[in-house]
Amino acid sequence: MNPPVVGLLESALYVSNLDRSAEFYGRIFGFPVMFSEGDRMRALNVAGRQVLLLFRIGASTQPTQGSGGTIPPHDGSGNLHFAFAIGEDQLERWRDWLARNGVPIESEVKCGGTSLYFRDPDGHLVELITPGCWPVY
Amino acid sequence: MNPPVVGLLESALYVSNLDRSAEFYGRIFGFPVMFSEGDRMRALNVAGRQVLLLFRIGASTQPTQGSGGTIPPHDGSGNLHFAFAIGEDQLERWRDWLARNGVPIESEVKCGGTSLYFRDPDGHLVELITPGCWPVY
Repeated sequence: MNPPVVGLLESALYVSNLDRSAEFYGRIFGFPVMFSEGDRMRALNVAGRQVLLLFRIGASTQPTQGSGGTIPPHDGSGNLHFAFAIGEDQLERWRDWLARNGVPIESEVKCGGTSLYFRDPDGHLVELITPGCWPVY
Repeated sequence: MNPPVVGLLESALYVSNLDRSAEFYGRIFGFPVMFSEGDRMRALNVAGRQVLLLFRIGASTQPTQGSGGTIPPHDGSGNLHFAFAIGEDQLERWRDWLARNGVPIESEVKCGGTSLYFRDPDGHLVELITPGCWPVY
């Protein structure tokens, strides 16, 4: 039997411009930058619970040497998909907020709850999802 | 001021073989498949708290029509990075479990807590991280 996992802590996006993406996720979601490493990466604080890592595309294809050890290489491309949970009572506020910020909702899906889909500056597919779609939320 | 986000709920990987990846994440982490859509995707239950989505590479480049609406296209490639939180007291158990399952630890990093890095069958860079590195855990 496997040892337990607490949950998903870090998720990563690979982006073409770190400042542009950090500005977007800061302005739209209120995620502050809590760690920054030059023009390679930014770590954003997701609601005090998780970490959204932004890596510049192509900048982590070699091992990263740190004082605590070596982080192995990784990289990605494409238009990745991920989702943030929101409260059912926040759905209208999110629709308004996205509109006021010029972020078009590309699609809305009913799956128990409601999902709003839109794009970040690199075309990554962001979803906001209310409870009811998955048994875990 | 932006409306609140509860946290990260779904993270996605793009893989070459859905069954192979579902078997890996089921056997190593104990994440059961809670939803499956043919040869396009699997949704895994991460510790009853979040969702790890596995998409076959290239299979979601067109909109996906569902009864509740249309999921916009997305896709990804490369060796993505993400992390699961584990308890400090589970670190030794995880080292043993990975060894017993033939999963080599590629690197170990000290950053307040301890991080173990290893690869999934597609070469995605998985991290297990104990508390102390990030202010959120």
